[in-house]
Amino acid sequence: MQNLGEEAFLQYMRHQFPVGDRVVGIGDDCAVVPAGQDVAWLITTDALVEGVHFLKDHISPTALGFKTVAVNVSDIAAMGGTPSYAFLSVALPHSTPCAWLKGLIEGIKQGCHKWNILLLGGDTVGSKRDLFLNLTLIGTAGISHIKYRHSAEPEDFICVTGCLGDSGAGLLALQQKIGQSWEVQQLIDKHFHPEPNPEEGVWLASQEDVHAMMDVSDGLNCDLKRLLRASKCGGIVDVSSLPISKELLKVCRENGWDAEKLGLTGGEDYCLLLTIAKHAINNIKQSFYEKFHKPLYVIGKVTSQRGNPVYEKEGRPMDIQLTDFQHF
Amino acid sequence: MQNLGEEAFLQYMRHQFPVGDRVVGIGDDCAVVPAGQDVAWLITTDALVEGVHFLKDHISPTALGFKTVAVNVSDIAAMGGTPSYAFLSVALPHSTPCAWLKGLIEGIKQGCHKWNILLLGGDTVGSKRDLFLNLTLIGTAGISHIKYRHSAEPEDFICVTGCLGDSGAGLLALQQKIGQSWEVQQLIDKHFHPEPNPEEGVWLASQEDVHAMMDVSDGLNCDLKRLLRASKCGGIVDVSSLPISKELLKVCRENGWDAEKLGLTGGEDYCLLLTIAKHAINNIKQSFYEKFHKPLYVIGKVTSQRGNPVYEKEGRPMDIQLTDFQHF
Repeated sequence: MQNLGEEAFLQYMRHQFPVGDRVVGIGDDCAVVPAGQDVAWLITTDALVEGVHFLKDHISPTALGFKTVAVNVSDIAAMGGTPSYAFLSVALPHSTPCAWLKGLIEGIKQGCHKWNILLLGGDTVGSKRDLFLNLTLIGTAGISHIKYRHSAEPEDFICVTGCLGDSGAGLLALQQKIGQSWEVQQLIDKHFHPEPNPEEGVWLASQEDVHAMMDVSDGLNCDLKRLLRASKCGGIVDVSSLPISKELLKVCRENGWDAEKLGLTGGEDYCLLLTIAKHAINNIKQSFYEKFHKPLYVIGKVTSQRGNPVYEKEGRPMDIQLTDFQHF
Repeated sequence: MQNLGEEAFLQYMRHQFPVGDRVVGIGDDCAVVPAGQDVAWLITTDALVEGVHFLKDHISPTALGFKTVAVNVSDIAAMGGTPSYAFLSVALPHSTPCAWLKGLIEGIKQGCHKWNILLLGGDTVGSKRDLFLNLTLIGTAGISHIKYRHSAEPEDFICVTGCLGDSGAGLLALQQKIGQSWEVQQLIDKHFHPEPNPEEGVWLASQEDVHAMMDVSDGLNCDLKRLLRASKCGGIVDVSSLPISKELLKVCRENGWDAEKLGLTGGEDYCLLLTIAKHAINNIKQSFYEKFHKPLYVIGKVTSQRGNPVYEKEGRPMDIQLTDFQHF
């Protein structure tokens, strides 16, 4: 595995497992399977591994359980679906305290309750050393109201639905054990309690002029690259228009961190990244604000020349070195 | 977790996650969700952990991949469904050789090909130490042709669709490193290449007089206990009628193993366990034979008095000590 990146591996898997035209397989946030006349099922699965995705000493079992549900809800929201049914696999070392497991299940319950999900099954097994969690989540969507990564068009505006970098900064704060000011607490809370919003996803997906959509899970730079690659386009992002929270700005100032870099690469934001037809941007922004009482942030533009996103500030290209999250 | 058995844990989960009447949740081989007028989706998920469910030195990656698909196919077959869509999560230590991963995927492909399954997605992540696999499998079934564990009736005959104990003996042979005779090879092959048969499951589930059904995955004794408990019945098994293969008999004779005990507790048989109304048994046995060119084995009878299975031989109760497989 040493030399095989995530993208190359996905490419390999798509090649090994072709799926035909009736369904959508590997490559988007969810698989899509028709289920009746006008409805499709969206299916996603996410694995969380101790020591890789979480440290037992950092996160409470309840927060971990909640987050396990949330990251999958984010994938369903990313394509315009409403989550419905969950399946949980847990591999537990023999030494896991009963109270820890109960806390985990309490967090799963809170997530299921919040998003109206029924947990219908799973598998609970032993593990020699590490703790593994896997959640498969099934959602539904109107078949004509599903958005993909591959449908961005040149001249589209690139938008996000929430502030970037808070979760990544929260993790950094935990790792560096910096002082627990109110602002730091807010960032850590964002890291532990992501709150994807499927209602926003459903509404945005129902808009014809929303062209492409996905969630921001591995950092804007990484995920925008994926969206542009899938759409065979390029893009320009105006870094000064990135939505950065006051809390992140303050904590960055105090600790000498780069807020823009965190916003571009922090990861685990779990908001939506989408592209909107130029002519419709004002209408959709306004309707979104009226419906959800929060702004839709325009951060850049899709371009016809294929390539990775280009970052600009005040109209000038930026020389910015970004290190993306890689699984391997 | 130390004191919490699998059954108690499932009970706890059922209580924590009630699901209402429209769907079937935790407790059967699959969850059942209506998907259109006459069709339901069956959904199952199974986790396999290195050092618990397999040893990398024992099993080739291709056999492991195939088996990961097969164990889930068995759950779908157990309720009368046809498998359709798979989702694979893999957590891989950094040191995993690329060739090993390719072998695993080749095995997954062979399984998907054999049972006409589309692999539509998954998650591939790193792992610190252990290798972890999780497959979620979705199948379909006619909504009126789904069988459950809870519907056995007193006087039903208890039947199985295949020989018992081969896979368990194959594992024992591997563990004890006993000589590799042709017969031992056959048993090991059964352990590595289980071949559940959804066509048998679909046909049996379509028979009104088949009352309860599940698969034999943790050994007949353990799984029959579950079926009887769910059906609020008891049962008598005639141990001399257990289907034991010639290979198992020979290897047991040569190594001083107890073939009956292996048949009752070996595990990973992945055949079907079902109960059939008394009046219909001859018809169904004969039709099954005509359709699948193999016998349906009658091994006992359901009784009205709730309790664990009672084992008899030549009409006399046996004093047999059985140790069941336990996850924790």
